[in-house]
Amino acid sequence: MSDQAFKHLRITRRGVVKSAAAAGAVGAVASFSILGPGGETAAQSEVERIAQERGLTPDDVNAALKTYVPSGKWDEYLIFASGGHSGQVLVFGVPSMRLLKVIGVFTPEPWQGYGFSDDTKAILAEGMLDGKPLTWADTHHPGLSETNGEYDGQWLFINDKAHARLAVIDLRDFETKQIVKNPHIISNHGGAFVTPNTDYIIDGSQYAVPFGWEYAPLSDFKEKYRGVMTFWKFNRDNGRIDSEQSFSIEIPPYFQDLADAGKGPSDGWMFSNSFNTEMSTGGIMEGKPPLEAGASLHDMDYMSVINWRKAAEVVANGGAEEIKGMQMIPMATAVKEGVLFQVPEPKSPHGVDVTPDGKYIVVAGKLDPHVTIYSFEKIQNAIAAGNFETDEFGVPILPFDACMEAQVELGLGPLHTQFDNAGFAYTSLFLDSAIARWKVGGEGVEGGWALVDKIPVNYNVGHLTAVEGDTVSPQGKFLVGLNKWAIDRFYPVGPLHPQNFQLIDIAVGADQPMRLLYDAPVGIGEPHYAQTIRAEKIQAWTVYPEVGWDTVNQQKSPIAVEPGKEGVVRDGNKVTINMTSVRSHLTPDIIELQEGDEVTWHITNIEKAQDATHGFAVPGANVNLSIEPGEATSLSFVADRPGTYPFYCTEFCSALHLEMMGYMLVNPAGGGEKKDDEKKDDEKD
Amino acid sequence: MSDQAFKHLRITRRGVVKSAAAAGAVGAVASFSILGPGGETAAQSEVERIAQERGLTPDDVNAALKTYVPSGKWDEYLIFASGGHSGQVLVFGVPSMRLLKVIGVFTPEPWQGYGFSDDTKAILAEGMLDGKPLTWADTHHPGLSETNGEYDGQWLFINDKAHARLAVIDLRDFETKQIVKNPHIISNHGGAFVTPNTDYIIDGSQYAVPFGWEYAPLSDFKEKYRGVMTFWKFNRDNGRIDSEQSFSIEIPPYFQDLADAGKGPSDGWMFSNSFNTEMSTGGIMEGKPPLEAGASLHDMDYMSVINWRKAAEVVANGGAEEIKGMQMIPMATAVKEGVLFQVPEPKSPHGVDVTPDGKYIVVAGKLDPHVTIYSFEKIQNAIAAGNFETDEFGVPILPFDACMEAQVELGLGPLHTQFDNAGFAYTSLFLDSAIARWKVGGEGVEGGWALVDKIPVNYNVGHLTAVEGDTVSPQGKFLVGLNKWAIDRFYPVGPLHPQNFQLIDIAVGADQPMRLLYDAPVGIGEPHYAQTIRAEKIQAWTVYPEVGWDTVNQQKSPIAVEPGKEGVVRDGNKVTINMTSVRSHLTPDIIELQEGDEVTWHITNIEKAQDATHGFAVPGANVNLSIEPGEATSLSFVADRPGTYPFYCTEFCSALHLEMMGYMLVNPAGGGEKKDDEKKDDEKD
Repeated sequence: MSDQAFKHLRITRRGVVKSAAAAGAVGAVASFSILGPGGETAAQSEVERIAQERGLTPDDVNAALKTYVPSGKWDEYLIFASGGHSGQVLVFGVPSMRLLKVIGVFTPEPWQGYGFSDDTKAILAEGMLDGKPLTWADTHHPGLSETNGEYDGQWLFINDKAHARLAVIDLRDFETKQIVKNPHIISNHGGAFVTPNTDYIIDGSQYAVPFGWEYAPLSDFKEKYRGVMTFWKFNRDNGRIDSEQSFSIEIPPYFQDLADAGKGPSDGWMFSNSFNTEMSTGGIMEGKPPLEAGASLHDMDYMSVINWRKAAEVVANGGAEEIKGMQMIPMATAVKEGVLFQVPEPKSPHGVDVTPDGKYIVVAGKLDPHVTIYSFEKIQNAIAAGNFETDEFGVPILPFDACMEAQVELGLGPLHTQFDNAGFAYTSLFLDSAIARWKVGGEGVEGGWALVDKIPVNYNVGHLTAVEGDTVSPQGKFLVGLNKWAIDRFYPVGPLHPQNFQLIDIAVGADQPMRLLYDAPVGIGEPHYAQTIRAEKIQAWTVYPEVGWDTVNQQKSPIAVEPGKEGVVRDGNKVTINMTSVRSHLTPDIIELQEGDEVTWHITNIEKAQDATHGFAVPGANVNLSIEPGEATSLSFVADRPGTYPFYCTEFCSALHLEMMGYMLVNPAGGGEKKDDEKKDDEKD
Repeated sequence: MSDQAFKHLRITRRGVVKSAAAAGAVGAVASFSILGPGGETAAQSEVERIAQERGLTPDDVNAALKTYVPSGKWDEYLIFASGGHSGQVLVFGVPSMRLLKVIGVFTPEPWQGYGFSDDTKAILAEGMLDGKPLTWADTHHPGLSETNGEYDGQWLFINDKAHARLAVIDLRDFETKQIVKNPHIISNHGGAFVTPNTDYIIDGSQYAVPFGWEYAPLSDFKEKYRGVMTFWKFNRDNGRIDSEQSFSIEIPPYFQDLADAGKGPSDGWMFSNSFNTEMSTGGIMEGKPPLEAGASLHDMDYMSVINWRKAAEVVANGGAEEIKGMQMIPMATAVKEGVLFQVPEPKSPHGVDVTPDGKYIVVAGKLDPHVTIYSFEKIQNAIAAGNFETDEFGVPILPFDACMEAQVELGLGPLHTQFDNAGFAYTSLFLDSAIARWKVGGEGVEGGWALVDKIPVNYNVGHLTAVEGDTVSPQGKFLVGLNKWAIDRFYPVGPLHPQNFQLIDIAVGADQPMRLLYDAPVGIGEPHYAQTIRAEKIQAWTVYPEVGWDTVNQQKSPIAVEPGKEGVVRDGNKVTINMTSVRSHLTPDIIELQEGDEVTWHITNIEKAQDATHGFAVPGANVNLSIEPGEATSLSFVADRPGTYPFYCTEFCSALHLEMMGYMLVNPAGGGEKKDDEKKDDEKD
């Protein structure tokens, strides 16, 4: 490397001149010098000057260059992360780790108009609990739809742990289309995990309750409290979960935790960890052990092993009962039909992850320093051998030694495991604040089932996500640790710290250490799980296919308003407004109402240009809509307070955006004039 | 530069060996080589390899290194950005442009528990409209508190354009403490702008309405519709706006737009642009010109020039009237007392920005390619000369030529202006999609009032923010364009595109072009304005000062629960729960209620460690709380649906976080047992 090399590429006042010769030569690469104010070549590269000024180490420079995405270029991967108790989904770009979008899912979000338009209010209303609206959720595990065990980029599902709900997001427009409430349970955890062709979305209970969370005293725990594994049937044709074709399986009242679907040889089966097989219910003030102790007494808990394909047959053959409006296979039936088994696991397990080839199930016990690997083949052999005991609910317990393939000691607090394309697994270590890289073993693998490398993270990592790292074809390259604590990583922004997504380079070669690349603060929600997909698999619309689009049902809307057909239609006290929006006016722009009118307001954004979204605010009606190009939507309200209300476009759409407004006038009942007494009250109170 | 230089610093398998000699030598900088698999020195630097692999240009490399913030290091500046119609405030770090936090302000945000705890519900209730809850806002302009015209890092204010509200955020904990509703107007725009010592927060109306948005037909526009300029008095002692000490000024029904407070020589005055002095009210379907045309007929609109210090005296001397419960200076009084003047401005102005020295006011007319600069001294002279006409409302109009200092032609659609520490101003050009750098003139300045450079942005830039760029001491270095459209900048995430914050290097020397550094997508809300502050000025708490902290009133809470004093107290059907949370249990952990009980649930997080936040969910009560270390808070609900409800910690706090739960049992009225008929219905429906 000599000064010569720096002359191939020069920065002039604005333009960049690239040397074709240098770019083409073997071994020669883009290098560059800076022309000083007088045109002379600077003696040191700009890279070195900036690195010195900013105190960047060579590792930092490496990381900066591996993560920076220039203006106009795109991230290669997308992360779909749970928004935790924000109730939303977060979309990040990789490697830049930039937050591209917050998708309103369970919590109303006015920028998107989500939960404010009539149609999105209806979606949220599907998720009511006992007839009451819910305006938040504890989102946990996003699940991308799969075809043959690979992400297909079409749909995203996510569960709400707090209320046992599941949402469906359409990745054509990144909007939520459906929420279903599980009628059998009130808290879930083991969702949303899809079967390899998205036939079903798995949704397992967390804390045991009686069916329908009906009242039963804790003294009836063993008799009346139950765990439940629910299989929601997904219909790709209409993009909706079909509750009628969905079913649950009654299981013991252990606290079910994470779940995963089998794939390849284990397709048709699923696995769910459980803890608190002690069936502790706390009672710290009553002199009993606190739950965290009571639930940690046994050395072993149980993994549930469920033949969901067989279960679907049992339901089809009438083996289920309808409970709370949805099919449920009784536990005894599930046992009798060979649907439900259990395998002991080291105490208080958390993660359960099936290897890409579907042959093994990796379980990480948070109180055990090992991951325990089960062989699906061995489990099948144990079942076939029929050599098992049962628990007190009559559910078979397969022998641990007969099912276990290997254990790998990784460190303290192992939780979750992802995979890459080079035969490695990555397991988060919560207590160690580290991620372990270990080699997956099996037939013909040398040096398998062995720890290879560990990288510290900051701090308390929960889940982790590698590129397509839970599918049949992991992509390697990047890994992200979803750290729960940030502590000192970011400039302090108050006692509620952000979480910390740490991007890690795993494309480092088999004998090289993993490298930390980037700390990405997450200042909304506490993401639990995330999935990373090759961006190219997602082909979202940038505008809706047709002007007048129903964005919930993804078809031309019957209430679309065409230009020239705008107006106000009155039928008694029912008023229908047909409005269009286009830069820079709303038509009509004067709306005259009478106090008490029931208003239905249809708006169509007749724009066809990308990003020509119009927001729409009606002060007094607690409404903001986001009307993307082509979208037709509606809002409804009762004009119950007389007054003068300017409505307006809330997205800065054009130079005359502030002029894109109109007046809604609500005439008091009995005419526009008040009595003198009332006037005086109004003006002087 | 030779191979020699690359040997100073080497990356080994994990460690970095730094050459002290090289670091100390003048002109020598950190340079490095990579040891290949066999230990040989690679022929090219890692920088070059990665740049080539990823297609990074020298400009890209420069930008990557200027913006990357390594793990464990902190951003130097913080941006407080409006969250647009998300209703929230967004906090970004600079130069990394990472989103550090979304602060819940006008919209409930469950991760923060904002709008779910009793105290934050009460804050949101302060902002109700006509007694009805509002669950969103159109936030526009964040205003950091100032001392002597400099940001002091203590408070942040932000307005809600859609409902004319103002919120107060305490920067000790980055939480919202107060919302006030302007009783005179329903839409604002010219807020939240503080006076140089934060005596008042300015809040100017946008769309004219009758006082209190009462009904009046549009035919009464000139008689009954009005603009209003409100001055909210801020009390630093308790950190609250004092409505009793606040006042408004009645002004003509032009649509007031942006505002700015004077400083230095112009302290005591403020300036507000207006448009639609034509008083067009649309009527496109009635054959009238659409508003955007009707409001653009005149060549000149008016800037309002207001002596707020004099206005405060007028109020103190009884010159105001109480209207809708708050003081209002009548327009005629404001004119008579020398409080209110107007100066013509080129048509449809948008931004108004006072220069750091307080001598000039820069107005950017969105339909005029110039910025127009007014001299405060000249305005004062014109007032003193008394040589003016009045508009039809009797408000003085000072002569344009007598007040105007200069005009600078910048390009199409100039909007807003910020300043740096080198005598330059930066004006966003919406239609040009560019930012102009121009030299501020004045006494003794050579080459002032002249365009210097323009940089394209992507796309449609609205506001822009330079470091402390609207204060008396701008810091230069970085500028951020708040672009409204992103179009092709980011991987497509549906028809609703993110916005694009573009970071621009302005520390480039007077004769060098500005350089684009970073595209930061904003995937929640459409930020309108933002302010950038030196991070060191903000000293937020990382934990609350004492365990048992009332986070709204920032003092020890009377309802704090001490360890050992937990329990459940029943008084008839009123039940008070006193709970503590600490890793990993909630005490008490069994709550027995009767159907219909009115529950008040006090919880204190007795943790003292940074980041040891416990979330708290009560399924069935639509509640999630975020209880930071030391925080004492409460929730209230009626237990109106019998059942079994597991409550739990929602922040992943510890290895046994999932075990941090308890059961709330709501016993049906009349006892726990149902009749057989009911039982059957429950189980079989």
